[in-house]
Amino acid sequence: MEDAIKRIERQLQFLVEVDKMKGILRQTVLIDQTRRENDAEHSWHFALMAMILFEYCEAEGADLSHVIKMALVHDLIEIYAGDTFAYDAIGIDSKAERERESADRLFSILPEDQGEEIRALWEEFEAMETPSSLYANAIDRFQPLLHNYMTHGYTWKLHQVRSDKVYKRMEPILRAAPELWEIVDGMIKDSIEKGNLVP
Amino acid sequence: MEDAIKRIERQLQFLVEVDKMKGILRQTVLIDQTRRENDAEHSWHFALMAMILFEYCEAEGADLSHVIKMALVHDLIEIYAGDTFAYDAIGIDSKAERERESADRLFSILPEDQGEEIRALWEEFEAMETPSSLYANAIDRFQPLLHNYMTHGYTWKLHQVRSDKVYKRMEPILRAAPELWEIVDGMIKDSIEKGNLVP
Repeated sequence: MEDAIKRIERQLQFLVEVDKMKGILRQTVLIDQTRRENDAEHSWHFALMAMILFEYCEAEGADLSHVIKMALVHDLIEIYAGDTFAYDAIGIDSKAERERESADRLFSILPEDQGEEIRALWEEFEAMETPSSLYANAIDRFQPLLHNYMTHGYTWKLHQVRSDKVYKRMEPILRAAPELWEIVDGMIKDSIEKGNLVP
Repeated sequence: MEDAIKRIERQLQFLVEVDKMKGILRQTVLIDQTRRENDAEHSWHFALMAMILFEYCEAEGADLSHVIKMALVHDLIEIYAGDTFAYDAIGIDSKAERERESADRLFSILPEDQGEEIRALWEEFEAMETPSSLYANAIDRFQPLLHNYMTHGYTWKLHQVRSDKVYKRMEPILRAAPELWEIVDGMIKDSIEKGNLVP
Protein backbone atom coordinates (compact mmCIF):
# COMPACT_ATOMS: atom_id res chain seq x y z
CA MET A 1 0.00 0.00 0.00
CA GLU A 2 2.78 2.38 0.95
CA ASP A 3 4.58 1.46 -2.26
CA ALA A 4 1.42 2.16 -4.24
CA ILE A 5 1.13 5.61 -2.69
CA LYS A 6 4.81 6.29 -3.33
CA ARG A 7 4.26 5.28 -6.97
CA ILE A 8 1.33 7.64 -7.48
CA GLU A 9 3.23 10.41 -5.73
CA ARG A 10 6.16 10.07 -8.12
CA GLN A 11 3.80 10.10 -11.08
CA LEU A 12 2.05 13.23 -9.82
CA GLN A 13 5.37 14.92 -9.09
CA PHE A 14 6.35 14.23 -12.71
CA LEU A 15 3.02 15.56 -13.99
CA VAL A 16 3.55 18.75 -11.98
CA GLU A 17 7.13 19.11 -13.22
CA VAL A 18 6.12 18.83 -16.88
CA ASP A 19 3.95 21.92 -16.45
CA LYS A 20 7.22 23.77 -17.12
CA MET A 21 6.85 22.82 -20.79
CA LYS A 22 4.37 25.69 -21.00
CA GLY A 23 7.19 28.10 -20.27
CA ILE A 24 9.80 26.75 -22.71
CA LEU A 25 9.68 29.10 -25.68
CA ARG A 26 10.48 27.99 -29.21
CA GLN A 27 11.68 30.17 -32.08
CA THR A 28 8.36 29.65 -33.86
CA VAL A 29 5.68 32.29 -33.43
CA LEU A 30 1.93 31.64 -33.33
CA ILE A 31 0.18 32.02 -36.67
CA ASP A 32 -1.41 35.28 -35.44
CA GLN A 33 2.17 36.48 -34.65
CA THR A 34 1.22 37.70 -31.16
CA ARG A 35 3.97 35.75 -29.38
CA ARG A 36 6.35 32.81 -29.49
CA GLU A 37 5.01 29.29 -29.20
CA ASN A 38 5.89 27.08 -26.24
CA ASP A 39 6.75 23.38 -26.10
CA ALA A 40 3.39 22.25 -24.68
CA GLU A 41 1.49 23.98 -27.48
CA HIS A 42 3.86 22.63 -30.12
CA SER A 43 3.54 19.08 -28.77
CA TRP A 44 -0.23 19.26 -28.89
CA HIS A 45 -0.26 20.70 -32.41
CA PHE A 46 2.24 18.10 -33.60
CA ALA A 47 0.13 15.25 -32.13
CA LEU A 48 -3.04 16.55 -33.79
CA MET A 49 -1.28 17.07 -37.13
CA ALA A 50 0.07 13.52 -36.97
CA MET A 51 -3.51 12.32 -36.52
CA ILE A 52 -5.08 14.40 -39.29
CA LEU A 53 -2.35 13.70 -41.85
CA PHE A 54 -1.71 10.02 -41.10
CA GLU A 55 -3.33 8.90 -44.36
CA TYR A 56 -0.27 10.29 -46.18
CA CYS A 57 2.19 8.26 -44.12
CA GLU A 58 3.98 5.75 -46.33
CA ALA A 59 6.49 4.61 -43.71
CA GLU A 60 5.39 0.99 -43.68
CA GLY A 61 4.41 -0.28 -40.26
CA ALA A 62 4.12 3.15 -38.65
CA ASP A 63 1.60 3.09 -35.81
CA LEU A 64 -0.37 6.28 -35.23
CA SER A 65 -0.95 5.71 -31.50
CA HIS A 66 2.75 5.21 -31.00
CA VAL A 67 3.51 8.33 -33.05
CA ILE A 68 1.12 10.39 -30.90
CA LYS A 69 2.75 9.16 -27.69
CA MET A 70 6.13 10.18 -29.09
CA ALA A 71 4.71 13.61 -29.96
CA LEU A 72 3.52 14.09 -26.37
CA VAL A 73 6.92 13.32 -24.85
CA HIS A 74 9.49 14.20 -27.54
CA ASP A 75 10.33 17.65 -26.15
CA LEU A 76 10.06 16.94 -22.40
CA ILE A 77 13.83 16.92 -22.04
CA GLU A 78 13.83 20.62 -22.99
CA ILE A 79 12.50 21.35 -19.49
CA TYR A 80 16.10 21.38 -18.27
CA ALA A 81 18.00 21.42 -21.59
CA GLY A 82 16.07 24.31 -23.17
CA ASP A 83 14.98 24.60 -26.78
CA THR A 84 17.76 24.42 -29.37
CA PHE A 85 16.86 26.21 -32.59
CA ALA A 86 16.95 23.72 -35.46
CA TYR A 87 19.16 26.01 -37.54
CA ASP A 88 21.57 26.91 -34.72
CA ALA A 89 24.87 25.24 -35.63
CA ILE A 90 26.57 26.02 -32.29
CA GLY A 91 23.72 24.98 -29.99
CA ILE A 92 23.37 21.72 -31.91
CA ASP A 93 26.91 20.70 -30.84
CA SER A 94 26.09 20.55 -27.14
CA LYS A 95 22.47 19.50 -27.65
CA ALA A 96 22.87 15.74 -27.27
CA GLU A 97 24.82 15.97 -24.02
CA ARG A 98 22.49 18.56 -22.47
CA GLU A 99 19.44 16.55 -23.43
CA ARG A 100 20.81 13.28 -22.06
CA GLU A 101 21.48 14.90 -18.69
CA SER A 102 18.03 16.43 -18.72
CA ALA A 103 16.48 13.04 -19.52
CA ASP A 104 18.33 11.41 -16.61
CA ARG A 105 17.01 14.02 -14.24
CA LEU A 106 13.44 14.22 -15.51
CA PHE A 107 12.61 10.59 -16.18
CA SER A 108 14.01 9.47 -12.83
CA ILE A 109 11.16 11.33 -11.12
CA LEU A 110 8.84 8.61 -12.45
CA PRO A 111 8.68 5.04 -11.09
CA GLU A 112 11.60 3.22 -12.73
CA ASP A 113 9.60 1.07 -15.19
CA GLN A 114 7.60 4.03 -16.40
CA GLY A 115 10.63 6.32 -16.60
CA GLU A 116 12.29 3.77 -18.87
CA GLU A 117 9.19 3.49 -21.02
CA ILE A 118 8.96 7.26 -21.59
CA ARG A 119 12.70 7.52 -22.15
CA ALA A 120 12.48 4.76 -24.76
CA LEU A 121 9.83 6.74 -26.64
CA TRP A 122 12.08 9.81 -26.64
CA GLU A 123 15.13 7.81 -27.73
CA GLU A 124 13.18 6.14 -30.51
CA PHE A 125 12.05 9.56 -31.71
CA GLU A 126 15.60 10.92 -31.66
CA ALA A 127 17.15 7.93 -33.44
CA MET A 128 14.63 8.23 -36.32
CA GLU A 129 15.16 4.61 -37.31
CA THR A 130 11.68 3.08 -36.91
CA PRO A 131 8.80 3.82 -39.31
CA SER A 132 6.78 5.49 -36.51
CA SER A 133 9.62 7.77 -35.53
CA LEU A 134 10.36 8.67 -39.16
CA TYR A 135 6.76 9.84 -39.60
CA ALA A 136 6.86 11.55 -36.19
CA ASN A 137 9.98 13.48 -37.18
CA ALA A 138 8.36 14.41 -40.48
CA ILE A 139 5.39 15.99 -38.69
CA ASP A 140 7.58 17.59 -36.00
CA ARG A 141 9.32 19.44 -38.82
CA PHE A 142 6.24 20.16 -40.88
CA GLN A 143 4.50 21.92 -37.96
CA PRO A 144 6.96 24.86 -37.69
CA LEU A 145 7.22 24.99 -41.49
CA LEU A 146 3.47 25.56 -41.62
CA HIS A 147 3.86 28.35 -39.04
CA ASN A 148 6.71 29.91 -40.96
CA TYR A 149 4.79 29.76 -44.19
CA MET A 150 1.67 31.29 -42.63
CA THR A 151 3.68 34.07 -40.94
CA HIS A 152 5.49 35.07 -44.14
CA GLY A 153 8.77 33.48 -43.03
CA TYR A 154 8.85 35.15 -39.61
CA THR A 155 11.54 32.95 -38.01
CA TRP A 156 13.41 32.36 -41.26
CA LYS A 157 13.79 36.09 -41.80
CA LEU A 158 14.73 36.70 -38.17
CA HIS A 159 17.61 34.21 -38.40
CA GLN A 160 18.41 34.60 -42.12
CA VAL A 161 17.79 30.89 -42.72
CA ARG A 162 18.70 29.66 -46.23
CA SER A 163 16.36 27.47 -48.28
CA ASP A 164 18.91 24.65 -48.67
CA LYS A 165 18.94 24.28 -44.87
CA VAL A 166 15.15 24.13 -44.85
CA TYR A 167 15.10 21.54 -47.63
CA LYS A 168 17.60 19.42 -45.72
CA ARG A 169 15.64 19.70 -42.47
CA MET A 170 12.40 18.66 -44.21
CA GLU A 171 13.88 15.48 -45.71
CA PRO A 172 12.01 13.12 -43.34
CA ILE A 173 8.78 14.38 -44.94
CA LEU A 174 10.00 13.26 -48.35
CA ARG A 175 10.82 9.84 -46.93
CA ALA A 176 7.75 9.34 -44.72
CA ALA A 177 5.02 11.11 -46.64
CA PRO A 178 5.90 11.87 -50.28
CA GLU A 179 2.46 13.30 -51.00
CA LEU A 180 2.97 15.94 -48.30
CA TRP A 181 6.38 16.66 -49.74
CA GLU A 182 4.75 18.21 -52.81
CA ILE A 183 2.97 20.66 -50.53
CA VAL A 184 6.16 21.37 -48.59
CA ASP A 185 8.14 21.92 -51.75
CA GLY A 186 5.46 24.30 -52.99
CA MET A 187 5.54 26.25 -49.71
CA ILE A 188 9.32 26.59 -49.79
CA LYS A 189 9.37 27.70 -53.44
CA ASP A 190 6.56 30.17 -52.82
CA SER A 191 8.40 31.56 -49.76
CA ILE A 192 11.57 32.10 -51.80
CA GLU A 193 9.60 33.81 -54.56
CA LYS A 194 7.96 36.17 -52.07
CA GLY A 195 11.31 37.02 -50.48
CA ASN A 196 10.44 35.32 -47.18
CA LEU A 197 13.24 32.78 -47.43
CA VAL A 198 16.82 33.25 -48.66
CA PRO A 199 17.37 31.09 -51.80
CA MET B 1 -5.46 14.58 -58.46
CA GLU B 2 -7.33 17.84 -58.07
CA ASP B 3 -9.53 16.19 -55.45
CA ALA B 4 -6.47 14.97 -53.59
CA ILE B 5 -5.04 18.49 -53.50
CA LYS B 6 -8.37 19.91 -52.38
CA ARG B 7 -8.41 17.30 -49.59
CA ILE B 8 -4.93 18.20 -48.31
CA GLU B 9 -5.78 21.89 -48.54
CA ARG B 10 -8.83 21.46 -46.33
CA GLN B 11 -6.80 19.49 -43.82
CA LEU B 12 -4.09 22.15 -43.73
CA GLN B 13 -6.68 24.90 -43.42
CA PHE B 14 -8.08 23.06 -40.39
CA LEU B 15 -4.61 22.62 -38.90
CA VAL B 16 -3.98 26.36 -39.31
CA GLU B 17 -7.37 27.23 -37.78
CA VAL B 18 -6.76 25.10 -34.67
CA ASP B 19 -3.71 27.25 -33.89
CA LYS B 20 -6.31 29.52 -32.25
CA MET B 21 -6.51 27.01 -29.37
CA LYS B 22 -3.29 28.63 -28.13
CA GLY B 23 -5.17 31.84 -27.53
CA ILE B 24 -8.25 30.42 -25.75
CA LEU B 25 -7.63 31.10 -22.07
CA ARG B 26 -8.97 28.89 -19.32
CA GLN B 27 -9.67 29.86 -15.72
CA THR B 28 -6.80 27.64 -14.57
CA VAL B 29 -3.40 29.26 -14.01
CA LEU B 30 -0.04 27.61 -14.65
CA ILE B 31 1.50 25.98 -11.61
CA ASP B 32 4.08 28.78 -11.42
CA GLN B 33 1.12 31.22 -11.37
CA THR B 34 2.63 33.47 -14.04
CA ARG B 35 -0.44 33.44 -16.28
CA ARG B 36 -3.61 31.60 -17.29
CA GLU B 37 -3.38 28.34 -19.16
CA ASN B 38 -4.69 28.00 -22.71
CA ASP B 39 -6.61 25.17 -24.36
CA ALA B 40 -3.68 23.80 -26.36
CA GLU B 41 -1.54 23.49 -23.23
CA HIS B 42 -4.38 21.92 -21.28
CA SER B 43 -5.07 19.39 -24.04
CA TRP B 44 -1.43 18.34 -24.13
CA HIS B 45 -1.20 18.04 -20.35
CA PHE B 46 -4.46 16.08 -20.22
CA ALA B 47 -3.22 13.65 -22.92
CA LEU B 48 0.08 13.08 -21.10
CA MET B 49 -1.68 12.62 -17.75
CA ALA B 50 -4.03 10.07 -19.32
CA MET B 51 -0.97 8.17 -20.52
CA ILE B 52 0.97 8.26 -17.24
CA LEU B 53 -2.02 7.38 -15.04
CA PHE B 54 -3.68 4.79 -17.27
CA GLU B 55 -2.72 1.92 -14.93
CA TYR B 56 -5.35 3.25 -12.48
CA CYS B 57 -8.16 3.17 -15.03
CA GLU B 58 -10.76 0.62 -14.00
CA ALA B 59 -13.32 1.53 -16.68
CA GLU B 60 -13.37 -1.85 -18.36
CA GLY B 61 -12.58 -1.74 -22.05
CA ALA B 62 -11.15 1.77 -22.01
CA ASP B 63 -8.58 2.19 -24.78
CA LEU B 64 -5.68 4.55 -24.08
CA SER B 65 -5.05 5.50 -27.70
CA HIS B 66 -8.69 6.41 -28.11
CA VAL B 67 -8.60 8.42 -24.86
CA ILE B 68 -5.56 10.36 -26.07
CA LYS B 69 -7.25 11.19 -29.37
CA MET B 70 -10.24 12.48 -27.43
CA ALA B 71 -7.92 14.59 -25.28
CA LEU B 72 -6.38 16.18 -28.38
CA VAL B 73 -9.74 17.23 -29.84
CA HIS B 74 -12.12 17.59 -26.86
CA ASP B 75 -11.78 21.38 -26.56
CA LEU B 76 -11.46 22.31 -30.24
CA ILE B 77 -15.04 23.59 -30.32
CA GLU B 78 -13.98 26.32 -27.86
CA ILE B 79 -12.23 28.04 -30.78
CA TYR B 80 -15.56 29.70 -31.62
CA ALA B 81 -17.59 28.89 -28.48
CA GLY B 82 -15.00 30.08 -25.96
CA ASP B 83 -14.12 28.43 -22.66
CA THR B 84 -16.99 27.99 -20.22
CA PHE B 85 -15.82 27.86 -16.61
CA ALA B 86 -16.87 24.53 -15.09
CA TYR B 87 -18.41 26.25 -12.08
CA ASP B 88 -20.23 28.97 -14.06
CA ALA B 89 -23.96 28.18 -13.75
CA ILE B 90 -25.08 30.79 -16.29
CA GLY B 91 -22.52 30.03 -18.99
CA ILE B 92 -23.33 26.33 -18.71
CA ASP B 93 -26.93 27.00 -19.86
CA SER B 94 -25.94 28.22 -23.30
CA LYS B 95 -22.84 26.00 -23.56
CA ALA B 96 -24.36 23.08 -25.50
CA GLU B 97 -25.91 25.27 -28.19
CA ARG B 98 -22.79 27.44 -28.61
CA GLU B 99 -20.57 24.40 -28.84
CA ARG B 100 -22.76 22.63 -31.38
CA GLU B 101 -22.67 25.65 -33.65
CA SER B 102 -18.92 25.89 -33.23
CA ALA B 103 -18.54 22.20 -34.07
CA ASP B 104 -20.59 22.63 -37.26
CA ARG B 105 -18.37 25.47 -38.34
CA LEU B 106 -15.00 24.00 -37.37
CA PHE B 107 -15.35 20.37 -38.41
CA SER B 108 -16.80 21.30 -41.80
CA ILE B 109 -13.41 22.74 -42.73
CA LEU B 110 -12.12 19.15 -42.89
CA PRO B 111 -12.96 16.66 -45.66
CA GLU B 112 -16.40 15.29 -44.78
CA ASP B 113 -15.35 11.80 -43.63
CA GLN B 114 -12.63 13.18 -41.41
CA GLY B 115 -14.82 15.96 -40.01
CA GLU B 116 -17.34 13.32 -38.97
CA GLU B 117 -14.62 11.22 -37.37
CA ILE B 118 -13.31 14.11 -35.25
CA ARG B 119 -16.81 15.22 -34.37
CA ALA B 120 -17.64 11.68 -33.23
CA LEU B 121 -14.65 11.75 -30.87
CA TRP B 122 -15.84 15.04 -29.38
CA GLU B 123 -19.44 13.80 -29.05
CA GLU B 124 -18.28 10.59 -27.42
CA PHE B 125 -16.25 12.61 -24.93
CA GLU B 126 -19.21 14.88 -24.14
CA ALA B 127 -21.71 12.03 -23.72
CA MET B 128 -19.44 10.28 -21.18
CA GLU B 129 -21.09 6.93 -21.83
CA THR B 130 -18.24 4.77 -23.10
CA PRO B 131 -15.44 3.48 -20.81
CA SER B 132 -12.82 5.49 -22.75
CA SER B 133 -14.77 8.72 -22.44
CA LEU B 134 -15.45 8.14 -18.75
CA TYR B 135 -11.71 7.85 -18.09
CA ALA B 136 -11.03 10.81 -20.41
CA ASN B 137 -13.48 12.96 -18.47
CA ALA B 138 -11.90 11.85 -15.20
CA ILE B 139 -8.48 13.05 -16.34
CA ASP B 140 -9.87 16.23 -17.92
CA ARG B 141 -11.17 17.13 -14.44
CA PHE B 142 -8.15 15.92 -12.52
CA GLN B 143 -5.77 18.15 -14.49
CA PRO B 144 -7.20 21.51 -13.31
CA LEU B 145 -7.68 20.06 -9.80
CA LEU B 146 -3.95 19.34 -9.70
CA HIS B 147 -3.28 22.94 -10.80
CA ASN B 148 -5.66 24.32 -8.20
CA TYR B 149 -4.11 22.20 -5.49
CA MET B 150 -0.58 23.23 -6.45
CA THR B 151 -1.51 26.93 -6.63
CA HIS B 152 -3.17 26.95 -3.19
CA GLY B 153 -6.69 27.07 -4.64
CA TYR B 154 -6.00 29.98 -7.01
CA THR B 155 -9.10 29.63 -9.20
CA TRP B 156 -11.30 28.29 -6.40
CA LYS B 157 -10.56 31.34 -4.28
CA LEU B 158 -11.02 33.73 -7.22
CA HIS B 159 -14.52 32.38 -7.87
CA GLN B 160 -15.44 31.35 -4.32
CA VAL B 161 -16.02 27.75 -5.41
CA ARG B 162 -17.49 25.47 -2.71
CA SER B 163 -16.09 22.00 -1.99
CA ASP B 164 -19.40 20.22 -2.69
CA LYS B 165 -19.27 21.56 -6.26
CA VAL B 166 -15.71 20.30 -6.61
CA TYR B 167 -16.65 16.87 -5.25
CA LYS B 168 -19.52 16.66 -7.71
CA ARG B 169 -17.33 17.70 -10.63
CA MET B 170 -14.71 15.09 -9.74
CA GLU B 171 -17.19 12.17 -9.66
CA PRO B 172 -15.96 10.63 -12.95
CA ILE B 173 -12.63 10.03 -11.20
CA LEU B 174 -14.36 7.96 -8.53
CA ARG B 175 -16.08 5.92 -11.22
CA ALA B 176 -13.18 5.53 -13.63
CA ALA B 177 -10.16 5.37 -11.33
CA PRO B 178 -11.03 4.70 -7.66
CA GLU B 179 -7.38 4.57 -6.66
CA LEU B 180 -6.87 8.12 -7.91
CA TRP B 181 -10.00 9.14 -6.05
CA GLU B 182 -8.19 8.66 -2.75
CA ILE B 183 -5.59 11.18 -3.85
CA VAL B 184 -8.27 13.59 -5.09
CA ASP B 185 -10.22 13.29 -1.85
CA GLY B 186 -7.04 13.97 0.11
CA MET B 187 -6.28 17.06 -1.99
CA ILE B 188 -9.78 18.47 -1.51
CA LYS B 189 -9.74 17.86 2.25
CA ASP B 190 -6.28 19.37 2.56
CA SER B 191 -7.38 22.42 0.55
CA ILE B 192 -10.38 22.96 2.82
CA GLU B 193 -8.19 22.62 5.90
CA LYS B 194 -5.73 25.21 4.56
CA GLY B 195 -8.54 27.63 3.76
CA ASN B 196 -7.99 27.33 0.00
CA LEU B 197 -11.45 25.94 -0.68
CA VAL B 198 -14.79 26.89 0.88
CA PRO B 199 -16.18 23.88 2.81
